Amino acid sequence: MRIVITGGAGFLGSRLARALLARGSLTDARGERRPIQRLVLLDVVAPALSDPRVSTVTGDLADPALIERVVTPDTDAVFHLAAVVSGQAEAEFDVGMRVNVDATRTLLERCRSLARPPKFVFTSSLAVFGGSLPDPVPDDARLTPQTSYGAQKAIGEFLVYDMTRKGYIDGRSLRLPTITVRPGKPNKAASSFASGIIREPVAGVVSECPVPETTGVWILSPRRVVEAFIHAQELPSSAWPTTRVVNLPGITLSVREMNDAMGRVAGPESVARVKFVPDARINGIVKTWPVRFRTPRADAMGFRADPDFDSIVRDHIENGAVIPA
Amino acid sequence: MRIVITGGAGFLGSRLARALLARGSLTDARGERRPIQRLVLLDVVAPALSDPRVSTVTGDLADPALIERVVTPDTDAVFHLAAVVSGQAEAEFDVGMRVNVDATRTLLERCRSLARPPKFVFTSSLAVFGGSLPDPVPDDARLTPQTSYGAQKAIGEFLVYDMTRKGYIDGRSLRLPTITVRPGKPNKAASSFASGIIREPVAGVVSECPVPETTGVWILSPRRVVEAFIHAQELPSSAWPTTRVVNLPGITLSVREMNDAMGRVAGPESVARVKFVPDARINGIVKTWPVRFRTPRADAMGFRADPDFDSIVRDHIENGAVIPA
Repeated sequence: MRIVITGGAGFLGSRLARALLARGSLTDARGERRPIQRLVLLDVVAPALSDPRVSTVTGDLADPALIERVVTPDTDAVFHLAAVVSGQAEAEFDVGMRVNVDATRTLLERCRSLARPPKFVFTSSLAVFGGSLPDPVPDDARLTPQTSYGAQKAIGEFLVYDMTRKGYIDGRSLRLPTITVRPGKPNKAASSFASGIIREPVAGVVSECPVPETTGVWILSPRRVVEAFIHAQELPSSAWPTTRVVNLPGITLSVREMNDAMGRVAGPESVARVKFVPDARINGIVKTWPVRFRTPRADAMGFRADPDFDSIVRDHIENGAVIPA
Repeated sequence: MRIVITGGAGFLGSRLARALLARGSLTDARGERRPIQRLVLLDVVAPALSDPRVSTVTGDLADPALIERVVTPDTDAVFHLAAVVSGQAEAEFDVGMRVNVDATRTLLERCRSLARPPKFVFTSSLAVFGGSLPDPVPDDARLTPQTSYGAQKAIGEFLVYDMTRKGYIDGRSLRLPTITVRPGKPNKAASSFASGIIREPVAGVVSECPVPETTGVWILSPRRVVEAFIHAQELPSSAWPTTRVVNLPGITLSVREMNDAMGRVAGPESVARVKFVPDARINGIVKTWPVRFRTPRADAMGFRADPDFDSIVRDHIENGAVIPA
């Protein structure tokens, strides 16, 4: 198996890479489980992962020549995780269009051009939804993005579906909940606070929360979303009969409930480190996103949510967060 | 007023042009009715329309240099009617993407770049719907295109809405029913039969119908859709508060009911000229489209359907169809 991960230097990309390397094998297009011989991580910066099976390539994802070099004819799977995140896509429309739409199309066209197109897993987002919607959002809710990020992801979904319907590729799109807790530094995603209000406080650092504590968030853990990427790739085509996109399962918590869980797991002093500093721009994006979903389709397909937020916080701490003495 | 019509040599484009010229004026972005001084018809072929106010430009719509030349800074309105139709977009994916997606984006970007962006009317289609849907289709139905044409139009709608939301342009998208009766020759639209089963028979010519007579069609007349283009342009922004797309009203008829109406208006001999010659490819596209809609939103906004199909056939005949002696 030869696998390409775009955004391979990012948090989810590198975590997916590690999970695939640990697993050692993946199911191919014919449903056969085969050893992973080559894992190519493509990103604008070089990922830090040393394994003899890993190659890293840096460059502009919207460059067809680069994509041609990276997605070789013997590629079995592409996990397309690279994206300009919500806050940046809203602030820099053209950068968002270039990466979220143009690079996705370039990748899809490259896959289409191959004699044996790789399975293609596309990272979409709950941001394709927005505005007035049923609560909870059903599996068949209409797409009503209220952000450029959401509109660009919706366009990506339509390309993946139509090119799959045409038989050009074998695509699968996953609409991700907000993924928390992410390690590292805050990023330009409007949802960055959902990690920041846990990651910094449990490490003894004060964190600013830009949205009210009543704000609801639809949540999935890094562990579960990596499982979902692999599961989406391994599902046979027959598991996607009428559409190629699925709303992943998740759990809904308010910021206050997230803090309460952190208090139970990491002590009340962690909660005291969360300072509410309203940011109208971020709140303006976040409040367009629905916070409750019903996901019977994903459940039936075998995708799984986390049992509760306490376990997510515990998992984050056990995976290397620094707890103050 | 300076107005640009893409697809200006096409049937709807030239009919819209004639309607605008006859009207003589149009409401501008400030809500003022102003005389039409210049009407620019852009198409791949030159339109046949002589009026001192008309300029014609031929060229490739996806060429930014051409678009820059045609959409000048003093342009008040763009009616974007040019498209690769459903049958061709399904047969030639890349041609469809180039015109239906790339040219639309080039036009939108050009409008955005202007100090005073023109109002932008985008021609979408009921083909953005498909597959399993409520019957009748409600205004807020989800987009489920099952053809490349539908997917490409859906992508155009998302671009129009997001760029309008950002304040880059002032866009309005209309989802057109099947427009019948079109004069001229059959085209590559899968819905071409909906005109062919009237146009040829009332002119004394045998017509082949590629779909069963039980096939339902969601119909609007050329007269009404031209009114809708102008009405969509003239409506103030405040008439489009939560979205920038509307399902136009229409009437539902089966092929058999269309034939019956033709018989009443043009005599039973016209009906005898319709021969059923099944075409699986065309039927495969047509049967993905819903045939019944509820359009309270369009109705409230002042868009109008035809009273019945008899009047559509009568209107077609009075506007120049040749009736055999």
